Amino acid sequence: MKRIRLGMVGGGAGAFIGPVHRIAARLDDRYTLVAAALSSNPERALASGRAIGLPDERIYADWAEMARAEAARPDGIEAVSITTPNHLHLPVARAFLAAGIHVICDKPLGLTLAQAREFAAFARTAPARFFLTHNYSAYPLVRQARDMVAEGKLGHLRIINMEYLQGWLSDDHVAGKQAEWRADPARAGLGGALGDIGTHAYHLANFVTGLRADRLSADLQSFGAERALDDNAHIHFRFPGGVAGSGWISQVAVGQECGLRLRVVGTAGMLEFFQEDPNRLLFWRKDEPLQVFTRGGPRATQDVRVPAGHPEGYLEAFASLYRDIADALAGDAAAAGRVPSLDDGLEGMAFIAAAVASHAADGAWIALDEYRNR
Amino acid sequence: MKRIRLGMVGGGAGAFIGPVHRIAARLDDRYTLVAAALSSNPERALASGRAIGLPDERIYADWAEMARAEAARPDGIEAVSITTPNHLHLPVARAFLAAGIHVICDKPLGLTLAQAREFAAFARTAPARFFLTHNYSAYPLVRQARDMVAEGKLGHLRIINMEYLQGWLSDDHVAGKQAEWRADPARAGLGGALGDIGTHAYHLANFVTGLRADRLSADLQSFGAERALDDNAHIHFRFPGGVAGSGWISQVAVGQECGLRLRVVGTAGMLEFFQEDPNRLLFWRKDEPLQVFTRGGPRATQDVRVPAGHPEGYLEAFASLYRDIADALAGDAAAAGRVPSLDDGLEGMAFIAAAVASHAADGAWIALDEYRNR
Amino acid sequence: MKRIRLGMVGGGAGAFIGPVHRIAARLDDRYTLVAAALSSNPERALASGRAIGLPDERIYADWAEMARAEAARPDGIEAVSITTPNHLHLPVARAFLAAGIHVICDKPLGLTLAQAREFAAFARTAPARFFLTHNYSAYPLVRQARDMVAEGKLGHLRIINMEYLQGWLSDDHVAGKQAEWRADPARAGLGGALGDIGTHAYHLANFVTGLRADRLSADLQSFGAERALDDNAHIHFRFPGGVAGSGWISQVAVGQECGLRLRVVGTAGMLEFFQEDPNRLLFWRKDEPLQVFTRGGPRATQDVRVPAGHPEGYLEAFASLYRDIADALAGDAAAAGRVPSLDDGLEGMAFIAAAVASHAADGAWIALDEYRNR
Amino acid sequence: MKRIRLGMVGGGAGAFIGPVHRIAARLDDRYTLVAAALSSNPERALASGRAIGLPDERIYADWAEMARAEAARPDGIEAVSITTPNHLHLPVARAFLAAGIHVICDKPLGLTLAQAREFAAFARTAPARFFLTHNYSAYPLVRQARDMVAEGKLGHLRIINMEYLQGWLSDDHVAGKQAEWRADPARAGLGGALGDIGTHAYHLANFVTGLRADRLSADLQSFGAERALDDNAHIHFRFPGGVAGSGWISQVAVGQECGLRLRVVGTAGMLEFFQEDPNRLLFWRKDEPLQVFTRGGPRATQDVRVPAGHPEGYLEAFASLYRDIADALAGDAAAAGRVPSLDDGLEGMAFIAAAVASHAADGAWIALDEYRNR
Repeated sequence: MKRIRLGMVGGGAGAFIGPVHRIAARLDDRYTLVAAALSSNPERALASGRAIGLPDERIYADWAEMARAEAARPDGIEAVSITTPNHLHLPVARAFLAAGIHVICDKPLGLTLAQAREFAAFARTAPARFFLTHNYSAYPLVRQARDMVAEGKLGHLRIINMEYLQGWLSDDHVAGKQAEWRADPARAGLGGALGDIGTHAYHLANFVTGLRADRLSADLQSFGAERALDDNAHIHFRFPGGVAGSGWISQVAVGQECGLRLRVVGTAGMLEFFQEDPNRLLFWRKDEPLQVFTRGGPRATQDVRVPAGHPEGYLEAFASLYRDIADALAGDAAAAGRVPSLDDGLEGMAFIAAAVASHAADGAWIALDEYRNR
Repeated sequence: MKRIRLGMVGGGAGAFIGPVHRIAARLDDRYTLVAAALSSNPERALASGRAIGLPDERIYADWAEMARAEAARPDGIEAVSITTPNHLHLPVARAFLAAGIHVICDKPLGLTLAQAREFAAFARTAPARFFLTHNYSAYPLVRQARDMVAEGKLGHLRIINMEYLQGWLSDDHVAGKQAEWRADPARAGLGGALGDIGTHAYHLANFVTGLRADRLSADLQSFGAERALDDNAHIHFRFPGGVAGSGWISQVAVGQECGLRLRVVGTAGMLEFFQEDPNRLLFWRKDEPLQVFTRGGPRATQDVRVPAGHPEGYLEAFASLYRDIADALAGDAAAAGRVPSLDDGLEGMAFIAAAVASHAADGAWIALDEYRNR
Repeated sequence: MKRIRLGMVGGGAGAFIGPVHRIAARLDDRYTLVAAALSSNPERALASGRAIGLPDERIYADWAEMARAEAARPDGIEAVSITTPNHLHLPVARAFLAAGIHVICDKPLGLTLAQAREFAAFARTAPARFFLTHNYSAYPLVRQARDMVAEGKLGHLRIINMEYLQGWLSDDHVAGKQAEWRADPARAGLGGALGDIGTHAYHLANFVTGLRADRLSADLQSFGAERALDDNAHIHFRFPGGVAGSGWISQVAVGQECGLRLRVVGTAGMLEFFQEDPNRLLFWRKDEPLQVFTRGGPRATQDVRVPAGHPEGYLEAFASLYRDIADALAGDAAAAGRVPSLDDGLEGMAFIAAAVASHAADGAWIALDEYRNR
Repeated sequence: MKRIRLGMVGGGAGAFIGPVHRIAARLDDRYTLVAAALSSNPERALASGRAIGLPDERIYADWAEMARAEAARPDGIEAVSITTPNHLHLPVARAFLAAGIHVICDKPLGLTLAQAREFAAFARTAPARFFLTHNYSAYPLVRQARDMVAEGKLGHLRIINMEYLQGWLSDDHVAGKQAEWRADPARAGLGGALGDIGTHAYHLANFVTGLRADRLSADLQSFGAERALDDNAHIHFRFPGGVAGSGWISQVAVGQECGLRLRVVGTAGMLEFFQEDPNRLLFWRKDEPLQVFTRGGPRATQDVRVPAGHPEGYLEAFASLYRDIADALAGDAAAAGRVPSLDDGLEGMAFIAAAVASHAADGAWIALDEYRNR
């Protein structure tokens, strides 16, 4: 099978998510990384690029130049992964899309809704495609959960509960590259924990239930003394059809690592998924014992590389997203339907904006449509 | 050791909590049940009383008469357990307190705050003492959790999260004596799930953290088609000292049994207790591995009958409360301090009233003081 | 319901299992403790008896005298609980059985097989009945497991695995009354961990599967430097019908409390029960997700006092045994069938003797029939 | 960093472990797969090779020819992965080693000890290096466990318990390529479950404790009616220094997937690792609460790609082994010391042979030295 020629912007030495994208891209052998702008500092860009085996001529410090140069090469990249801090997501994406190069972009979709909406308008008519990496949606058992909801195994939905608990920001000041840009509104955007992990939790709920919230009411906190953005959030939701929801998002929950949990209650059943234990899905059906699904069931095996019992994890889920994107680029509509999209990116931005607005209005219920359609 | 002569009101055939009280009272051999009004129907009262071995002369159908008669006997009861539906809690308690008989009463403290407040004014000057059975607070590891918070093991508190999830009301209509009175505002009061189990969760949070909420914002649902009261609640809290909180209370969470969970986050650590697994307490301290306490630790062993590894459960916790009450009646102030009180009952009523009021005001933040001091 | 007049031998101050029997006896209100010989030391016997509320005239220091005196009283005890160290089990039991008083006796059935067999011959013709308290068999989900095996839910059985892991003897020398008599062959018998907890594990396997081993091969260790008896045992079993088995019994497994675990494999399913988490039973059926039963299922609810979700534990299981004994004494054959018997006691002694013999023969396979029928 | 040119023998369409090796090799970007003999059938070899993107000239059907041809090319492979059924492991390995090409070989080390020993004699003087893929030893928390044992955190070792439970052979006849060759002594060797998964469990115990057994006593079963080899094994071990051990290996444990569990008991602590939950390591230290390590601890983070909380699994552990091999080939002795070796392969063969011999001798204790040194 032909491999897609891939480029990358961001993700140099010390980065967390850049290397994850690179592993995800090669895990199923559908991509070859051939060019990159891993840093805006020329020396670091060169050193980082060489360290991952790129030839000097395909190493860039300036992503705009990279977009131009690669578009001009007969063997130029066909797609680019964007793994920069948030404020660069949209400018970089725009440059590559404009150059006819597909974009695989980290969430969130920029810093503000206005930017996001303007970008989306552009992207919808661009000569290349845009994909967003809400990676948790690609766990095999998350996809099984989504199918179970769609098939009515839970009956009519009633309640959605989402959590994403981390503890790494529990100190007032947290040093390090990862913590710094996330704490800076100019680089992270309106939301702190909300944007960094809250959007993942909210997207997971959207993905599994097929529902987006009508309204929300939020109470935000910044416990870290030197922190401009939220590091903890409590949110109530109202989804269509009378479905109620709630969420707890935290980066100060001491000892918690990536505690992303989704619980969905219907009239006939209840589901629970916990990201730190991703090879199990809990399902309660009325008047029956709890059932614990593994990747061994008929649905989940579509997405797996090794049989149940051999744990797959975060990198495999991320790789599944990359595989789906490769399939989508090859014309597979079902695969395309599984990959988070521009719309999901806009929804995430509306979620952040509405939560910040609700908190500013002392928890008033805010309609997301105000932000979606403005 | 002398046994306390105990009476009981409520708890006849088909009851759930009456038999629990009887087991709890005798488990540590500190009480003898010698009189009861188990039903207001004379025939059922007689049959139920005989079934548990009472002599006919100590079996009553009328609790007011029982209070009078027992107070008049030289060997009359010293304390009475009240295990009726909610609307009778206060009238019965008043009758026995007035007769100089100590009262051990199920929560909640009546149907409305006005009743509760008026009752409390009376009870504070009554010639006997009043105890409330928020039984979950008597688990050994809950008490250890409370001590750990008090000793500063978690640092300064930041976040409190409470859940109580049940699924037994997930059908629109649920038959049976237990479901019926709980669904009837005239017998259950203002709150449905809020009053039945939400007050337990809220009390547990109060008990462990020593904090009572300043304000709350609530979103309530009644999913059961024929249900007048809430069967699901989402609540945000603000506690003193900048501590944030949230809660999810449900009786429609299919498959959940008694999913009472408390999580407390501080600057230095985080605790988690789950009532269905009560012999373990999870503790995360910053930069250390998760620690799982059992009843084997030095604190917990004060409260246990059998060594760690031999699971104790719900009945033992309930019995610990009865034991503490016996000790309190014998003059042990520390024991008295561990037993939920009139104040806890008023707090529970304020919690229900504030949540209902907040929901009616579309989730507005409501100060609990409005209800505590009105 | 009439309460059975109960006596007790053993179980004075500092004892572990005596108080457990007393709680178990009163938990379901089917017994009244009216007489006891809690210690052979007259002063301690008196103090201990008074401490639990007995009148002086029913407090004995000499169990033989107690048997005579109680048999002579019109209101004498109908049954006696024996909670002494192992070496007294049979002499005491014999005295009370001979006096026409039913016996509820701790395992094991004495110190040696010869004693046990001779006792059994006597007991089978005695004017009263004998019951053995292998209490773990009374957990509701153990009984459900037994029913599931009997109903063929696992298909034909293939493999039985048993574990009982404790850590309290991991030091070379362990002080305290509990440790001392267990380490003394003259009071504990042939087996150390084998007798103390191994017999429980083996009985649990017998109870759930309905199978007793044909042969076993054992490897025993005494890790404690000052220890005469085994504190760790590894055993292979061959059960009838080609069923294979294995067991690990330890009292030096640091940190383990009462880790009694039973796993049973059949052609169609597999079961797992873990005593420290007794409100759950795991069941794997071929090609289906794991099912986790709680006490909420139709079988388990026969044995419970409080609904699923309100954890029951060790004391409740012990109480269920006492309840079954009361029912058995009232003529209920089904209840009698659930209570461990003389035969179970003999089987436990054969198990210990065969394991010790196998170890002495360097792990040779030993037929249990040699010990059962000798 | 320069990538190692890698070839592969075995692992065509329908294979399980071949694709795993390919993912493991590329996950950390240290290898490029440039040649393969994926099948001995020329048409299938060609189709399989093309499917993974190899040029026709580097696709072989005959591994002997592949060894010759690749050795002759200036850009020939530097290492080869052998993922064939067991009977081909040694002939293939010998051909490549003789050609100066390093070998990364699946366990076990051939079919018989005689073969293995003869091969080892050859391999020790061959012009290239030999590595064995006991992949489970590369989990970060397994390596932490090994370090903890080495550092004395458990005190002096006393007991080792190993389990590997699967259920996929619970039917009498299991169809499919994977089941067929494993059931055929001519292709699988002396051991069934023993060789397939028992060697993994035994190696894991060796790896973590640094101990190899002196003697063992085994009881084997073949429950599948049409099965020539064992599908269940119970084993007792005696390790040096008075350490006792036991193991349960099964491929008929219905519903179990890859239930590889290791428990190690010392005088001061106890460890437990379970392969299906590989991001946690349980540690009990005397008189302290259970500690649950994740990949977040200082030791484990050496081996991980993503922070704790982002689960890593089977493929990452396998990739760590490949990474260590690459480092070893680059001269890193510490990395070489972490990779299973020829000696581990011989030990596995001695383990199988001794277990089969013990079973044939009715469970007699067999010294492994008889097989190691013969």
